[in-house]
Amino acid sequence: MSGAPITSLQNPRVKGLVKLRDRRARDESGRFLIEGYREVMRALKAGVTPSVLYCSPEWFLGGNEPALLAAAAKTGAEVVELSKPVFAKVSYRDRPDGLLAVAPQWKRTLADLDAVVGRGLSPTSRGGRKARPTADPFLLVVEAIEKPGNLGTILRSADAAGVDAVLVCDPVTDLFNPNVVRSSTGVLFSMPVVVAEGAEVRAWLREQGIRAVATTPAAETLYSAADLRGPLALIMGSEQYGLSEFWLKESELLVRIPMAGEADSLNVAMAAMIALFEAVRQRGLKA
Amino acid sequence: MSGAPITSLQNPRVKGLVKLRDRRARDESGRFLIEGYREVMRALKAGVTPSVLYCSPEWFLGGNEPALLAAAAKTGAEVVELSKPVFAKVSYRDRPDGLLAVAPQWKRTLADLDAVVGRGLSPTSRGGRKARPTADPFLLVVEAIEKPGNLGTILRSADAAGVDAVLVCDPVTDLFNPNVVRSSTGVLFSMPVVVAEGAEVRAWLREQGIRAVATTPAAETLYSAADLRGPLALIMGSEQYGLSEFWLKESELLVRIPMAGEADSLNVAMAAMIALFEAVRQRGLKA
Repeated sequence: MSGAPITSLQNPRVKGLVKLRDRRARDESGRFLIEGYREVMRALKAGVTPSVLYCSPEWFLGGNEPALLAAAAKTGAEVVELSKPVFAKVSYRDRPDGLLAVAPQWKRTLADLDAVVGRGLSPTSRGGRKARPTADPFLLVVEAIEKPGNLGTILRSADAAGVDAVLVCDPVTDLFNPNVVRSSTGVLFSMPVVVAEGAEVRAWLREQGIRAVATTPAAETLYSAADLRGPLALIMGSEQYGLSEFWLKESELLVRIPMAGEADSLNVAMAAMIALFEAVRQRGLKA
Repeated sequence: MSGAPITSLQNPRVKGLVKLRDRRARDESGRFLIEGYREVMRALKAGVTPSVLYCSPEWFLGGNEPALLAAAAKTGAEVVELSKPVFAKVSYRDRPDGLLAVAPQWKRTLADLDAVVGRGLSPTSRGGRKARPTADPFLLVVEAIEKPGNLGTILRSADAAGVDAVLVCDPVTDLFNPNVVRSSTGVLFSMPVVVAEGAEVRAWLREQGIRAVATTPAAETLYSAADLRGPLALIMGSEQYGLSEFWLKESELLVRIPMAGEADSLNVAMAAMIALFEAVRQRGLKA
């Protein structure tokens, strides 16, 4: 722990933490917030190293926090203590647990996925293809998702379904929004996620020989009647507008997910989960 | 509109509205809150008649609110105007839209489901069974759900899957929690939901000849390898503890939903959705 606890709400570091809730401050600084014991622990486990870990022992809920602080310090993170009221100010949770990290953002490109989809050359196997347990890439592409909570839930579903990578096209929310971090329950740290333009993703899928199957209520084919085996990218549209014309035209197949009820159509996170797990079922369940 | 707008935060009606956020006040009064244009509209459409509809025109987002007020008044609801700051106080939303109704709670029993499952005698057909488009009941049973948001999402999924009724056993949250209302997107008003004890539900399912299929991570049978056709009740456990010994022992079949990822297991709402839509797939999609 470096120095005495910060007790002033006017402290510039405190103000900086509050600002990181806004996208502009995140974009400009290239940093983002990771709040909560579970989230910080998963970040460390996934190799995400915070620059600073703010803590406020009066808010701690259990007895494992000191070990987490030590683990963070070991990776080079500065550990800074905040007074209870100051932590209440910087926390964006209903029930703070006294841990809030600041970490540098990262950026993956389509080229980084070459190893993931099993077609590229890994640094240690330049002479041939990288060995992979599954030969058939299983990807999720989401377009223009608006709500951070939906994007986080989609990442979580993709993780549960064993998806190899998630491609986020033309996003409205940024990947490092605190609600994406939270609703993904840390999957953001471990799942390969690439943000890219739709046309670029479409071209890359073609190069890789990965079939694009897009979901739209207008499709004739039921999602469960389609063959979802082999190299597959499931394409899901935005909450409000669905998929763009581009993906509807450029996909190899359009499928629809049925809806029996009277309420709004399934939200995009629910629809993604249903389609993903039907693909899992067809591809042979691994768990 | 009855009289001048309420402008005092000390007004007893204002205090009563805030109290209805607490379960005790809901239980004692037998009333609950319905906030928001969409929710109030769906309540009216489903035949739920508010006793009072509070409105605050300065918060209105569109132009359709007067028609909704008129429709509510026509069902006998008292329409009461609140000043902008008073409405801000009684709203539990981040972005209030100037509409908040109070309505009487209702209670359905297993006997009320006789018509739904197609085995009972409806009042107009005492000589025989009530005609129903689907002969095979499709039910969802949830046990001891803790989070109102999960219960609401489960109701929404059940609606999308075309479930006939939801049975809520030994609930921790009450059905009329504002977050159930909100996250169900109004499905609470239209879906037959019965709250009952587990043993009672189990006995009723037997009487009706409905097979209980319970989901648990410990099961050997994959959910997608099980036959989910015919009269079916899918049984889902609580967020933290899963299903009780009772259901694990008393169900005809245990199935598991696979999980590939590293994060927490699927939450109960996600697992319910996956199991429900596999049943929909097997039973022949209707939408």
